[in-house]
Amino acid sequence: MKMAHLICTKCEKEFPIDRVHPRCPGCNEPLEVVYPRLKKGKIRSRGTLIERYHAFFPFSSIHEGISLGEGNTPLLQSSVVASELGVNKLFFKNETQNPTWSFKDRGTVAGLEHALSLGFKKIGTVSTGNMAVSVAAYGARAKVDTYVLVSAGLPEEKIGPIAIYHPRLIMVGGDYGELYFKSLEIGERFGIYFISSDVPFRVEGSKTIAFEICEQMSFEPPDYAVVPVSAGGNVRGILKGFEEFYRVGLIDRIPKMVVGQASGCSPVTNAFEKGSESIERVVDPHTVAHAIENPFPPSGNQVLRKLKENGGTAVKASDEEILEAQALMAKEGIFGQPAAAVPLAAVKKLLADGYLKQTDSVVCIVTGGGLKYTAALTHHPFKVEKTGL
Amino acid sequence: MKMAHLICTKCEKEFPIDRVHPRCPGCNEPLEVVYPRLKKGKIRSRGTLIERYHAFFPFSSIHEGISLGEGNTPLLQSSVVASELGVNKLFFKNETQNPTWSFKDRGTVAGLEHALSLGFKKIGTVSTGNMAVSVAAYGARAKVDTYVLVSAGLPEEKIGPIAIYHPRLIMVGGDYGELYFKSLEIGERFGIYFISSDVPFRVEGSKTIAFEICEQMSFEPPDYAVVPVSAGGNVRGILKGFEEFYRVGLIDRIPKMVVGQASGCSPVTNAFEKGSESIERVVDPHTVAHAIENPFPPSGNQVLRKLKENGGTAVKASDEEILEAQALMAKEGIFGQPAAAVPLAAVKKLLADGYLKQTDSVVCIVTGGGLKYTAALTHHPFKVEKTGL
Repeated sequence: MKMAHLICTKCEKEFPIDRVHPRCPGCNEPLEVVYPRLKKGKIRSRGTLIERYHAFFPFSSIHEGISLGEGNTPLLQSSVVASELGVNKLFFKNETQNPTWSFKDRGTVAGLEHALSLGFKKIGTVSTGNMAVSVAAYGARAKVDTYVLVSAGLPEEKIGPIAIYHPRLIMVGGDYGELYFKSLEIGERFGIYFISSDVPFRVEGSKTIAFEICEQMSFEPPDYAVVPVSAGGNVRGILKGFEEFYRVGLIDRIPKMVVGQASGCSPVTNAFEKGSESIERVVDPHTVAHAIENPFPPSGNQVLRKLKENGGTAVKASDEEILEAQALMAKEGIFGQPAAAVPLAAVKKLLADGYLKQTDSVVCIVTGGGLKYTAALTHHPFKVEKTGL
Repeated sequence: MKMAHLICTKCEKEFPIDRVHPRCPGCNEPLEVVYPRLKKGKIRSRGTLIERYHAFFPFSSIHEGISLGEGNTPLLQSSVVASELGVNKLFFKNETQNPTWSFKDRGTVAGLEHALSLGFKKIGTVSTGNMAVSVAAYGARAKVDTYVLVSAGLPEEKIGPIAIYHPRLIMVGGDYGELYFKSLEIGERFGIYFISSDVPFRVEGSKTIAFEICEQMSFEPPDYAVVPVSAGGNVRGILKGFEEFYRVGLIDRIPKMVVGQASGCSPVTNAFEKGSESIERVVDPHTVAHAIENPFPPSGNQVLRKLKENGGTAVKASDEEILEAQALMAKEGIFGQPAAAVPLAAVKKLLADGYLKQTDSVVCIVTGGGLKYTAALTHHPFKVEKTGL
């Protein structure tokens, strides 16, 4: 490992880089990777994601044959949606073109690299959606035993797209929030590296979204980056990416972050609006954007801390607004799952209330593909014409 | 338009490059684009697909804002599957990482570029699958009226992923084969450019798969490229790409092509095995690989002609073999739709019967994503463990 260590995002206590447990024993807040000697390293134009940004990762060597071709996703400048909303510079970072069709692949490959560098032969995750699919795929590729913890009662149609990659599916009791903490114990006991939600190396993977945006915009980053927030690891990673490029002098300002949540499950936005320093558990969460239906996000407090420091904001959108944004984005040729349309719903609201100006440049992160959740299509009416030609 | 024209793939009669009708009025065989003065042009490392390979397209200018970030898909060297099958150099070209998660986007953007260069404001297609999704998405992006002809009785769940992009869905009578020819008449009457199955510019788009493979293999192309065949346009395009790179001196040999079809619908393989020069319509086609269930492919005869000249072969795989290959490919972390697993099923058979040797290098084209057809998952048993940790 190169010079780097972990610190607690709250109390700033230091931990060694080879630590696996992702949280501070004192604060129970998430850890993150710090590079004391970070400098403007060479960015390769070819190679795997980790190879391209090797200078921004602590790995001294990179394992061959574990990449599935993650990252390097398009940044599209909007014309259809931009003119409909009356904003000049709107972009979509289309993460649905990853190997398992969501942003999760970036964090998975970074976590896997860390796990392998520490000698682990087993990885795991707690998820029923994009993350489970991603970890199962990369575990298969890397030929490591892969454990996916699922809660009882999960419907078969959610299991199939995970099971196809042949992980070990283990049913455990409790809801997702409980499973997350239980997995940390299980991992220590059985030697499984859990690459779940907001672990430090998943955050490291997400920062490459910001790196690519900077490169794709010729190192003139946008005014705002808008991210759907569930556990909170992705928005932390993207901001960390901008901060690291700023620190080494590759960009001269850090975009403001906009957190997008669903009205039916918005613990971060609720706390942000109240000016509170900590999130409260959402009781009875419900939204069509299932991928971000996390009632008690493990990085929620850290997202609040960073949002305050960064000067960004947090928004929530109703299911109706989310579905409307999903349809609007498809008018530009991009079909995201409902959670992936939350940024566009947020942009629309922030333009309406004057927070965003017509001249601002804004990047929406389209986190996962529309085919992930085709049930949402039933909300979109369509007609088949019987004449007309 | 730069110097280029169309010729009939059978009688070699010439037609102007601005012709829209894709077939020879004499032979009823498909036309293709010919570049009399093709030379080793500059290949750009950045930009859209058409921009990167501009030297190999006839467009004098390129329309801005119509790309969705197509192409540039990973070529993964297999380790898991390669060792299971006992072949040294097996690769997967993962076309599921395109904007609408199939290879179709390459041909769509090339066809759209041609349509716009001729002044068309309307595009269309005849399809109920990947092609309809792709054309609907690009039509939205380019702000042109987009017509998707569908046959009566199409189930709603197939329409939703097309309809989300807001095309005009027009129901017409007849099966797919009839609709193809009907669409050509409709197109002429209403000024709609139909970018269907094997039209010349869809073939031009597909050739970029070969271009990318050559670049990704440092211009040492594989011994074999294995392609699932439906209408026949994609395999024609991929071979054309290798031939053009060979012609300008970028590679020093042309890979042999392997056509993969499903046993329940294999008009090209049937004719190839018989040594026939023309395909026969398959009666009562049926296969789990719906994306290639084309009983009378419009480029079938041309694929036979080219296969003979190229020295490749044609294979068919049963549904059981296709599903087995789908599961095997997922053991490498790649989840393709059943049609996309046909190449791997073909490779397995060709290794078993000695056609392929352990030392051959082979590229399988993974044409579309597994989430396109999740019903196939019901064929794959899985178990959820209740203990084990």
